[in-house]
Amino acid sequence: MTKHVDKIIKNAIVLTMDEDFNQYDPGAIAVNGNAIEAVGSEKDILEKYSADEILDAENKILMPGLVNAHTHIPMTLLRGLEDDLRLDVWLLGYMMPVEREFVTPEFVRLGTKLGCAEFIRSGVTSFNDMYYYEEDVAEETAKIGLRAVLGETIIKFPTPDAFSYEDALKYTEGFIQRWKDHELIVPAIAPHAAYTATVPMLESARALALKYNVPLHIHVSETAKEVKDMREQEDRPVVPYIKRIGLLDTKMIAAHCVHIDKGEIHSLNNYGCGIAHNPSSNMKLASGAAPVQSMLDIGANVGIGTDGSASNNDLDMFEEIRLAAFLAKLSTNDPTALNAKTAILMATRLGAKAIHLGDITGSLETGKRADLILVDINTLHNSPRFKRSPDAPYSQLVYAAKSTDVNDVMVNGKWLMRDHELLTVEEESLLQEAADYAEKIDEFLIKREKSVLSKLIGIGGAMEQESFEVQIKVRIPDPQKIIDKIESPEIDVVYFRHYHEYDTYFSFEDKSQGYLRHREDEFINPDGTVDHSRARLTMIGQELEHKFPSDVMLSRSRYYAPATQTLRFLREYFKPQSETFIEKDRLRWLIKYNDIEFYINIDTLEKPDMGNFLEVKSRTWSREDAKVKAGLIAELIKFLGADPDTEVTKDYLELVSEK
Amino acid sequence: MTKHVDKIIKNAIVLTMDEDFNQYDPGAIAVNGNAIEAVGSEKDILEKYSADEILDAENKILMPGLVNAHTHIPMTLLRGLEDDLRLDVWLLGYMMPVEREFVTPEFVRLGTKLGCAEFIRSGVTSFNDMYYYEEDVAEETAKIGLRAVLGETIIKFPTPDAFSYEDALKYTEGFIQRWKDHELIVPAIAPHAAYTATVPMLESARALALKYNVPLHIHVSETAKEVKDMREQEDRPVVPYIKRIGLLDTKMIAAHCVHIDKGEIHSLNNYGCGIAHNPSSNMKLASGAAPVQSMLDIGANVGIGTDGSASNNDLDMFEEIRLAAFLAKLSTNDPTALNAKTAILMATRLGAKAIHLGDITGSLETGKRADLILVDINTLHNSPRFKRSPDAPYSQLVYAAKSTDVNDVMVNGKWLMRDHELLTVEEESLLQEAADYAEKIDEFLIKREKSVLSKLIGIGGAMEQESFEVQIKVRIPDPQKIIDKIESPEIDVVYFRHYHEYDTYFSFEDKSQGYLRHREDEFINPDGTVDHSRARLTMIGQELEHKFPSDVMLSRSRYYAPATQTLRFLREYFKPQSETFIEKDRLRWLIKYNDIEFYINIDTLEKPDMGNFLEVKSRTWSREDAKVKAGLIAELIKFLGADPDTEVTKDYLELVSEK
Repeated sequence: MTKHVDKIIKNAIVLTMDEDFNQYDPGAIAVNGNAIEAVGSEKDILEKYSADEILDAENKILMPGLVNAHTHIPMTLLRGLEDDLRLDVWLLGYMMPVEREFVTPEFVRLGTKLGCAEFIRSGVTSFNDMYYYEEDVAEETAKIGLRAVLGETIIKFPTPDAFSYEDALKYTEGFIQRWKDHELIVPAIAPHAAYTATVPMLESARALALKYNVPLHIHVSETAKEVKDMREQEDRPVVPYIKRIGLLDTKMIAAHCVHIDKGEIHSLNNYGCGIAHNPSSNMKLASGAAPVQSMLDIGANVGIGTDGSASNNDLDMFEEIRLAAFLAKLSTNDPTALNAKTAILMATRLGAKAIHLGDITGSLETGKRADLILVDINTLHNSPRFKRSPDAPYSQLVYAAKSTDVNDVMVNGKWLMRDHELLTVEEESLLQEAADYAEKIDEFLIKREKSVLSKLIGIGGAMEQESFEVQIKVRIPDPQKIIDKIESPEIDVVYFRHYHEYDTYFSFEDKSQGYLRHREDEFINPDGTVDHSRARLTMIGQELEHKFPSDVMLSRSRYYAPATQTLRFLREYFKPQSETFIEKDRLRWLIKYNDIEFYINIDTLEKPDMGNFLEVKSRTWSREDAKVKAGLIAELIKFLGADPDTEVTKDYLELVSEK
Repeated sequence: MTKHVDKIIKNAIVLTMDEDFNQYDPGAIAVNGNAIEAVGSEKDILEKYSADEILDAENKILMPGLVNAHTHIPMTLLRGLEDDLRLDVWLLGYMMPVEREFVTPEFVRLGTKLGCAEFIRSGVTSFNDMYYYEEDVAEETAKIGLRAVLGETIIKFPTPDAFSYEDALKYTEGFIQRWKDHELIVPAIAPHAAYTATVPMLESARALALKYNVPLHIHVSETAKEVKDMREQEDRPVVPYIKRIGLLDTKMIAAHCVHIDKGEIHSLNNYGCGIAHNPSSNMKLASGAAPVQSMLDIGANVGIGTDGSASNNDLDMFEEIRLAAFLAKLSTNDPTALNAKTAILMATRLGAKAIHLGDITGSLETGKRADLILVDINTLHNSPRFKRSPDAPYSQLVYAAKSTDVNDVMVNGKWLMRDHELLTVEEESLLQEAADYAEKIDEFLIKREKSVLSKLIGIGGAMEQESFEVQIKVRIPDPQKIIDKIESPEIDVVYFRHYHEYDTYFSFEDKSQGYLRHREDEFINPDGTVDHSRARLTMIGQELEHKFPSDVMLSRSRYYAPATQTLRFLREYFKPQSETFIEKDRLRWLIKYNDIEFYINIDTLEKPDMGNFLEVKSRTWSREDAKVKAGLIAELIKFLGADPDTEVTKDYLELVSEK
């Protein structure tokens, strides 16, 4: 008597990926409902089970569906937006501005559908996500039929779906409550990273994860800089820091872990945390090579992820699996490191364990959910096939097979792809919608790229200064004479400062864009030592607005921002046509003259060596006021004893450029 | 009036890869005979040309065919033979024994066909090969219609197609003479590497390359060990060494160049040598990361290769291109290194230049041969497509596209693939033939793997010792008493030696295999210092053949070989079930007793600490002689005053194992 089940797949090379790595060739599997009823030799299964639907696998590999342990699925819509950039330029200059502008529930749904379709095509049956609007991600994923751990992002900046982290926490709690018993979806909380969250934020995330016993998904030690900063600020690396906050008590999934030491690996392992290794992303962004072999050596739960398509640029787990093996060999200088069998294990059973789904998926075993794929290894690039070693099928999957060899995909007992045809996603319309989005984003960026100001605002907002600046500049042969005048009783000095200034001007092909000045000010003590320094970024309109009598200049449209980015970042981001460097010494007074405030600068241009200048300046929001001040400046110049004939109507950049 | 040409391809995104990186979208190309007549905007081309065959590319990318700068195409038949092994185990233990057994013209032809089919499917139109029987490679390649530089191997060991290097040179000269004017094939000479050739061999190869002005293809600095050895032996790294021999005067193609310094890069560049970078192979075999960015920085001709399928394990140039970009970013710690455009350049125009075909292929330009491919980027994993930057198509090809997106391939004006269908290779029969070969190789290795002796012979031949060994072993409380006896006049001492011995025994699951002993002998001077050491490998049959009266043992079947491989190699290659380590001090005399030679050993087992033993031994090819010697040994033992009751019929391994 045979037992009747829903589906049987026979004539397969079965890789169970169970604890004993059992293989059956020819093997078969019996599926009932959403679960695996039995797996074994074809003979055994056909003797014990019957089914209406019996699929002949035609000698394909039957194995557990792949587990993508870290991704940002909606970012599939941003695939190839910008590449070959440094992380900060890419993230702050492109990803975040585009996300601020475009990420809506609609965007997230489309990106999710696109990503799910690509996952199915490449054999992924479970994934672990971190993004915004995860409620929308959940609905689309569930509709398509993939299994997922979905982590709603908590971060200290305003996000597309939450103005504050309190809002995000509230959103997440609702999301968790609504989805926590779903068959396919495991809701989770995803504090973005230790360095992008405050301690109270991490504590709240922890509390929520524990309250609902859901996974907590977080980026850990992706870059050397992150670890260096953490050590400087907290005197410890990232894992001990988040351990002290208690994050390791949760069902944590730590993405990346590129720069963690053996102690940290042991901590993560002792607490049963999962680790998601992302070889493509780590190589492409030059983050480094995670110590994966060391993780495996102590038996840590380490899976493999694609990261988001924006930094990969695809969701191809076959590529990641191969790269995990390659990268471990390269970085340990040992070709026996991370062998093919281990790589496949990481992408299946171990990966499932890493994302805390190990009890229900990741291997073909009785009682687990029927999450499986058929891979056609009877193709040209898989040929020939050596069979003497039980490791050969793993080796073939890792080093020769391609994601396009995935022929069929089943999740939770339901077919999502048969013979390369997607059954739950309408692919054509999806591609068209994605193309429309790309066009809109292209337009947005084309417009922005044309405007230096938009780019400046794009990286964190510039403040507009008072619109109008009136100023005069004259050459002075003897600064001391001017200083003596400033110190006379007619002038009320509010304060005096001594700076040493390093200015880098970026000029652009389109002159109407104005130019961008990066200034580093060293504050000089009376004894000549440097007290401290600061850097500022100023966008200066190129054109003079007006010249008043006595050549007092009026200019406008200045925007400034603290220069938190390095000059290198700014150079790569703004891509100036040319750069000019000026170094000068500046004595600066804020004075009152006729009860109106003016700045007086006595500048000595050192590089290039161009002598001494006196500047008198004032700023205002009002054009009328500017006129009044222009008159007073002309007076003041005379009072200071400077020679109006040495008047210079150009700014330093122009003077130096013409030299 | 339009000019009539053979073929026009229109409605394509044309990436010319010419000096100005011209792109046309929609673009078109006109092909006449084997050459490109014109390339440009669709409008221009359709205005100027007409053709009977006009192909609508349907918005696919039209680009130069890819150039695979280094491979061993017949090894496609050995894909996946053994993986995750160290280079020496893989090469000496598997590749070379299998090649010795299987490589014939038939093997080479089948491997070539299989490789060519895979090349066409993945968009490769030119490749640079190094193997044996290149005449056969040439015939099959020409028949299929691919372009290739084919280098016949010159190496100091006997090869499948040449017993000596003189034979190989003669073969190569004939090969060059017959093929030097072929339209598709460029014959070449391939001295395998500096470390596998003598100076006269390299000089002869150079002379031949110069005589016929053909390329010279050689492995250069693939591993750190190769460079270390060269420095030790020749006091310089590899490039200066081969430069002194004059190899750089030829049209040289240096494969790998993983461990070369800036001076060497400059040398290669100054002489116009090509470099073939093989990222997959270098990662998989843990050879390292070649300094590709430094090569590019000085404008060197560096192409990308797959290396052979046996070490890759595929011929997928899309994977190599992506990995070239990834690996450069990782190894320079700079995500802007080796950008997508450069990666595509290396796989097309620059790669063609590297293999000295730059004048005829590698870019879409009037007058060059029509070697081109169409890549379908309108698929799911390529979606969406951003279009605002001219770098976007390169980025898409490198980071998102797959080799399976290659839709059509033309070489020399002739279609080799249309809409994924191979036109010049019969794929089905090919796969069957390859499967048959794999089966034979599997059988050979299964048989060999079962036999420790076959494996020992596989790595360079073991010598059989005299078949019979007679020996007796007794415990001795006081070695000095025995020594006094040996020094008595009844015994004629031929020589005396003092050793310190480190023995590692490998035991196997199948006890009938016997065991393998790795012994390192230190030769001790009278003052106790170590004079020198040597290592030997001995395979010892497990079973006693016979026991003579007085417990003199007779054993047989010993094979020994100088242990040129490390213990680590042997461990990974022989995969013993267990290992036993024994350290002992040995005083050894060769003596004559009754005019017959015997060895007397007084051994002190130090690790583990097991006391002193006296051994008397003799070896012979004759069973009768063994009997005579057995009698004399029994006598000798008594003469030496040892106690026959402390007789031990076990060897040290058994004694220690039982302890």
